[in-house]
Amino acid sequence: MKKGVSFEIESLGDTVIPNTASTASYFKFHSDSERVLYHHLLSKFQGEVDEQGLPAGFEVAGPRENIFFQGEKCRAAILTCGGLCPGLNAVIRGIVLQLWYFYHCKQIFGVRYGYNGLRNDSEEIVKLNPDWVRDIHSVGGTMLGTSRGAPPVDEMVNKLEALKVDMLFIIGGDGSMRGGHAIWQEVRRRGLQLAVIGVPKTIDNDIPYVHRSFGYETAVKEAAKVVNAAHVESRGAPYGIGLVKLMGRYSGYITANAVLASGNADFCLIPESPFELEGDNGLFALVKERLRRRRQVVIVVAEGAGQQFFRREELIKDASGNTKPGDIGAYLRDRLNTHFLDVGFPVTLKYIDPSYIIRSTPPNFSDKIYCDHLARAAAHAAMAGKGGMLIGNWHGHLTHVPMSALEGEVRQVDLQSDFWFSVLENTRQPYIIGPSVCVAD
Amino acid sequence: MKKGVSFEIESLGDTVIPNTASTASYFKFHSDSERVLYHHLLSKFQGEVDEQGLPAGFEVAGPRENIFFQGEKCRAAILTCGGLCPGLNAVIRGIVLQLWYFYHCKQIFGVRYGYNGLRNDSEEIVKLNPDWVRDIHSVGGTMLGTSRGAPPVDEMVNKLEALKVDMLFIIGGDGSMRGGHAIWQEVRRRGLQLAVIGVPKTIDNDIPYVHRSFGYETAVKEAAKVVNAAHVESRGAPYGIGLVKLMGRYSGYITANAVLASGNADFCLIPESPFELEGDNGLFALVKERLRRRRQVVIVVAEGAGQQFFRREELIKDASGNTKPGDIGAYLRDRLNTHFLDVGFPVTLKYIDPSYIIRSTPPNFSDKIYCDHLARAAAHAAMAGKGGMLIGNWHGHLTHVPMSALEGEVRQVDLQSDFWFSVLENTRQPYIIGPSVCVAD
Amino acid sequence: MKKGVSFEIESLGDTVIPNTASTASYFKFHSDSERVLYHHLLSKFQGEVDEQGLPAGFEVAGPRENIFFQGEKCRAAILTCGGLCPGLNAVIRGIVLQLWYFYHCKQIFGVRYGYNGLRNDSEEIVKLNPDWVRDIHSVGGTMLGTSRGAPPVDEMVNKLEALKVDMLFIIGGDGSMRGGHAIWQEVRRRGLQLAVIGVPKTIDNDIPYVHRSFGYETAVKEAAKVVNAAHVESRGAPYGIGLVKLMGRYSGYITANAVLASGNADFCLIPESPFELEGDNGLFALVKERLRRRRQVVIVVAEGAGQQFFRREELIKDASGNTKPGDIGAYLRDRLNTHFLDVGFPVTLKYIDPSYIIRSTPPNFSDKIYCDHLARAAAHAAMAGKGGMLIGNWHGHLTHVPMSALEGEVRQVDLQSDFWFSVLENTRQPYIIGPSVCVAD
Amino acid sequence: MKKGVSFEIESLGDTVIPNTASTASYFKFHSDSERVLYHHLLSKFQGEVDEQGLPAGFEVAGPRENIFFQGEKCRAAILTCGGLCPGLNAVIRGIVLQLWYFYHCKQIFGVRYGYNGLRNDSEEIVKLNPDWVRDIHSVGGTMLGTSRGAPPVDEMVNKLEALKVDMLFIIGGDGSMRGGHAIWQEVRRRGLQLAVIGVPKTIDNDIPYVHRSFGYETAVKEAAKVVNAAHVESRGAPYGIGLVKLMGRYSGYITANAVLASGNADFCLIPESPFELEGDNGLFALVKERLRRRRQVVIVVAEGAGQQFFRREELIKDASGNTKPGDIGAYLRDRLNTHFLDVGFPVTLKYIDPSYIIRSTPPNFSDKIYCDHLARAAAHAAMAGKGGMLIGNWHGHLTHVPMSALEGEVRQVDLQSDFWFSVLENTRQPYIIGPSVCVAD
Repeated sequence: MKKGVSFEIESLGDTVIPNTASTASYFKFHSDSERVLYHHLLSKFQGEVDEQGLPAGFEVAGPRENIFFQGEKCRAAILTCGGLCPGLNAVIRGIVLQLWYFYHCKQIFGVRYGYNGLRNDSEEIVKLNPDWVRDIHSVGGTMLGTSRGAPPVDEMVNKLEALKVDMLFIIGGDGSMRGGHAIWQEVRRRGLQLAVIGVPKTIDNDIPYVHRSFGYETAVKEAAKVVNAAHVESRGAPYGIGLVKLMGRYSGYITANAVLASGNADFCLIPESPFELEGDNGLFALVKERLRRRRQVVIVVAEGAGQQFFRREELIKDASGNTKPGDIGAYLRDRLNTHFLDVGFPVTLKYIDPSYIIRSTPPNFSDKIYCDHLARAAAHAAMAGKGGMLIGNWHGHLTHVPMSALEGEVRQVDLQSDFWFSVLENTRQPYIIGPSVCVAD
Repeated sequence: MKKGVSFEIESLGDTVIPNTASTASYFKFHSDSERVLYHHLLSKFQGEVDEQGLPAGFEVAGPRENIFFQGEKCRAAILTCGGLCPGLNAVIRGIVLQLWYFYHCKQIFGVRYGYNGLRNDSEEIVKLNPDWVRDIHSVGGTMLGTSRGAPPVDEMVNKLEALKVDMLFIIGGDGSMRGGHAIWQEVRRRGLQLAVIGVPKTIDNDIPYVHRSFGYETAVKEAAKVVNAAHVESRGAPYGIGLVKLMGRYSGYITANAVLASGNADFCLIPESPFELEGDNGLFALVKERLRRRRQVVIVVAEGAGQQFFRREELIKDASGNTKPGDIGAYLRDRLNTHFLDVGFPVTLKYIDPSYIIRSTPPNFSDKIYCDHLARAAAHAAMAGKGGMLIGNWHGHLTHVPMSALEGEVRQVDLQSDFWFSVLENTRQPYIIGPSVCVAD
Repeated sequence: MKKGVSFEIESLGDTVIPNTASTASYFKFHSDSERVLYHHLLSKFQGEVDEQGLPAGFEVAGPRENIFFQGEKCRAAILTCGGLCPGLNAVIRGIVLQLWYFYHCKQIFGVRYGYNGLRNDSEEIVKLNPDWVRDIHSVGGTMLGTSRGAPPVDEMVNKLEALKVDMLFIIGGDGSMRGGHAIWQEVRRRGLQLAVIGVPKTIDNDIPYVHRSFGYETAVKEAAKVVNAAHVESRGAPYGIGLVKLMGRYSGYITANAVLASGNADFCLIPESPFELEGDNGLFALVKERLRRRRQVVIVVAEGAGQQFFRREELIKDASGNTKPGDIGAYLRDRLNTHFLDVGFPVTLKYIDPSYIIRSTPPNFSDKIYCDHLARAAAHAAMAGKGGMLIGNWHGHLTHVPMSALEGEVRQVDLQSDFWFSVLENTRQPYIIGPSVCVAD
Repeated sequence: MKKGVSFEIESLGDTVIPNTASTASYFKFHSDSERVLYHHLLSKFQGEVDEQGLPAGFEVAGPRENIFFQGEKCRAAILTCGGLCPGLNAVIRGIVLQLWYFYHCKQIFGVRYGYNGLRNDSEEIVKLNPDWVRDIHSVGGTMLGTSRGAPPVDEMVNKLEALKVDMLFIIGGDGSMRGGHAIWQEVRRRGLQLAVIGVPKTIDNDIPYVHRSFGYETAVKEAAKVVNAAHVESRGAPYGIGLVKLMGRYSGYITANAVLASGNADFCLIPESPFELEGDNGLFALVKERLRRRRQVVIVVAEGAGQQFFRREELIKDASGNTKPGDIGAYLRDRLNTHFLDVGFPVTLKYIDPSYIIRSTPPNFSDKIYCDHLARAAAHAAMAGKGGMLIGNWHGHLTHVPMSALEGEVRQVDLQSDFWFSVLENTRQPYIIGPSVCVAD
């Protein structure tokens, strides 16, 4: 947890409207004072308390007994931003169904192609209803479309005012959450009654305060299949090398879990753990040793790994303003091929870059259920008039997390954790892949 | 949490042998004083502390800096009990690989067909090694075989003494854990140095202190497919009823999640929520109303639901000593068919009971990874000389849970939780299915 | 080929309207004189010629250069009959798309719930168009619904006259094709201009003159999964017996192919090959021998096998008028359990009857393509004014087959064929399972 | 059929050894005089007869009543060549099981890494037996490994002589069959008693006289999934273009069938049908029109399509000596991106090249069964002492085809066939994609 970060959630004002959902009489509502502890480990917990002497924690997500908006009169807008991720449609569907059936809110707009659908001149608005969303949860991608980049905040808030919407749902990555925070600040400045709720999307599972992001399990499943394909290809050829590049600009979760799920990889290279090519204990030497012993080798690399091989000035930014990492997959392919040609050790390298195939997969059953839970929590938060927040996941509970808390943070694999060691044991790669053999003393 | 339950873990004695795993120098070991808090909600947490004024919690699982056994000299035994569950082989594999490679323990015995393999005259012992387990994680069922029932504790401990094993791993359900606890007590009585570690198996996900049990996600996935099949059958026939019986003697988790994952069910009947057939608001009336409106209906029932329809004396026990629930699937099939024949409303009912098909499925990628983590934790606990405990899962951490803590408890669906309400909204069934319409006031 | 059977196709009259499909100028039309030879083996072919001295053969299906109906003015009706089979929706979709886009026929009616939708008082008619069918090919079952049984032919033809349709497409089994033939005869008697075209549906692949029926490959795939489940269950238990009942009233194709695809079965019991339970070489003895040697056994039985164990008078007919076979699955389960109890050899038998799960599966990619081809051929035949015929498959070509040719015939597994021997080699079961060991001399 | 091609099969000599397979007494053996007619269409058949006045045809594959080799004394070798294809392992397994159990031939050698395993100095020989092959049919790739290229024929035959093998099974593409023919000719020249049997492997399904090649259905299934992924990606972006490159150097079968199976493609570009980019009716114009109308477009291109865009001298050859086609996928990606940038019409193009992912897939159930049939037929042919031939598939029968008959031929999609028109109707692309709109007259 970053110093000075606050977990307090802002809102549009007092909630005075009783939540009259038909099932209300049986229901256990949640109150804003329920908190999920940040630290759940006894050792860690003891020292850290907030100003009131209470351990810091997150608001628990869920329906509130009193809410801010009157469902029947509500108008809502939903948009999806950034790259595809399994489950986008399931989240859209869940929000629509919850607003429609639980809160009787029937003015729901889908903004097409992300923030760009909020441009002044955009006509990219579709009306959503239960029929429109009925079967979309089993379909990959997003029926609303997505894009990178955004018009100025002012222009977007103007458009939202023109649409007269009371709540905006943003399904997107950390960049989109920054955008959502900016919209929320402008909303507050103008004194509008517009809830702004995020559902964090990251196929890399790297958003802080979100232990599990939707679509991630599905992505691991698909990624593991590709690692298995590389294994089959490498076994089929004399001194075969299977090389796979997976998603993960800043964190190696998807790569590491795909390696664990496959059980067929020899090297797992992730952004958190730098590595070298040359030297007695460098990748070239280790690969050669494995080829000698087992005649095949499988290398799985996250797209953000090995970025020290690229010069900053050569890298480009995508439309969202994120610097695109250097293409470590193609780089390794070329360097490995050249190296083994140079040393007169003929190898057969097969390179697979499956990105779109993984991103466009429909969610598996587990992610479908999870998307539904996230979507319902987002609808409850919006109805309660909250803003500038996203739905998090902490110790197995859905929570409210201020969008501002994400600033400058990224969830990464802890290189001293049981998790990373299970990867090392699985691949049997050394802890450090570097110039000289590192001996534990 | 039951009154008076203790989370303290017993062990064979002091751990004085340094853990010299090859990766040790980089590793973050866990200590026994690290605890996962039982209550992670601020509201709940405050009142409950233990004698030392500390909130109650579980030992964190994982490798210890000092251990009890010397890996190279260790002898281990593994057995699987009860019904099949996806992932049994993956747990066996994980234990063998961890003992072999991390602790250099190479005397590992597989006991075939569960506790019955520990009978006096049994010769059902196989030697396990990495080659034997290499690819079994992708295979359904258990390569060791399983059975219900057990010989007397004395006989089993005699056999374990004869095998000279230092640790016994039991992969089984709550009954098997009771058996494990009895073995551990006998071990303590005899003063043996034999660690007894459980990996809890429950396809129903109903073991207390275990938020997620292995194989459960896979089972939900397969169960949801069957619900979809029932949906297709019910749509294909005039006034079609699709009826599916799923696992779940005491808890409706698998049934409820299959309903959520499918999105195609109209009624979800679970043990936690009693229901009636007759009356204005009984199942017959509700089914008829749906058939009139939508011409098809899908009912999913957990095997333990509606047990009030059976007389106790008619029920039988299985070999494990568990009372088998009355066959609610066949009961509903017959009652529905008779009822609609009687009232002159012809229906076409298709009944599906997929039990074995679900139980024998190989684990999905997510469960494969999870089984691996559980198995590693079990191996670490055994090497540390612990006993009478199982690997739990609490707030996302693997934990140590005394086998005795399970006694008399079962994890059930909370009928006032967001989770159950998401099921009700999904099916649009009323909160109470009973004789008269229940109006919320 | 049955004596006296004719392959000549009837039609409504001369085809004088040029087929002006937009792609016509590039197209290779088929003429009615193109024939697929019945015998493609040289040895067989020589002796059999028809009256003109030409070898007997089937009309080749496909578009004709001149057609009978004018597309824009056409009205068509489609119905599905009998049990579910993977691909029904894909056939419906293919017919609609072909009529709509190729022939500009835009009055297409879906008759719901099979022939019963043609009852006098039925209002079960829906209008079909490309939007309605767009995505249904990936969905199991039939969106039109199906049923067994039919009203009198007169009543159905009255209804068709009232609907003013020019063509009726019947997707159904051999019983439904008999019904279609009766409708066609009544149509001829009344002098109506109504084409009657069948698309044969048989999950058992047992319709004569149809080498491959749609949905069959998908069914084999699903059935093989169930055989694998039984294998896993039988391996998991001491002296485990996995018993699976599959579809196949008169022919064992699906059972035999599921056995081949799985590779895990020990006994494949089909209607074509009678077997006995008792005796030195009976099923009991053979099962016991395998259990002794391999400790597990998997038996796969087609529903129509072993019917000699049932007395004719005990059997019942279904609504289509077909005699339902005795339940050989439950019979074997009970007999095996009793036998091994009696002889004091404890076994653990797990019985799986997956019928609906297989029938409701969506078609695999191969069947989707095949359904599309069948549907297009059916549309072409109808536009050419043909009637009383179905789309067959002979030597890899789609053909026209008179519905009358099916009478009294069923396609069965040839017990002397390479195919059946590959099953015997796969299971290693003897050619004859009977009272005494049969020695080849 | 090429002029002058002969379908006569050569053999090592008279078959005088009775086939004493245990099941022989029940078996219907095939004789060499049984033939599958080349032409099965009546219209075509009449004119073409061979010298004896009989219609030309292929020998039917299958077991012979008398055979050339004595099973118990036989020594066999198996190798796999060229790129991966689903089912290679299933063919290896089928040959081993058939030789071992049916013919009691137990000296079976696996030659690793294709023809290169027959180099003088190679030690790449493994002994095969039922245990080794038991489960490999469910595994992608080839357990024997493969490679491109070959040592001189002399060297290979020397090696085979040194191994003292009586039969060589070659599983490979058309190049490998040419190699097999050369080996067979050398065998004949030296007067050796060595049967040489091919099992044709072509993921493109383009080998003449082989209506269905193994692995092809599986490849179509996987390819269709990728087309669906491109569809999802193109729908997710504003003016999204999904571009997929599939296998198919000379024929478009896999591309066309993947398009049919997916149902989501707008353009199917194959080697058989040349196309242009520019002009009123060129690809650019057609794509733009679709984007305007539907906002997304999916293009599927076979790797051998559009080769006129590459200059012969720029192309390179692979190790097998085949000219590698120009990379039409990358070419189209770049040209499309540049074109739409130039005309100020911003598009979002996602390019997918899934080659290895498809090639390494395990065979589906249907292909598993088919591989088994092919393998058994190959074993029967070898035992009968045949040589220089491969197992074909004609009108649904397995056949014997001389390797020499393949010379200079390739199976291609008939652009005037129903099949190709079903693709055109599915994509709704014009028959000719060229400079000006082509009007049918």
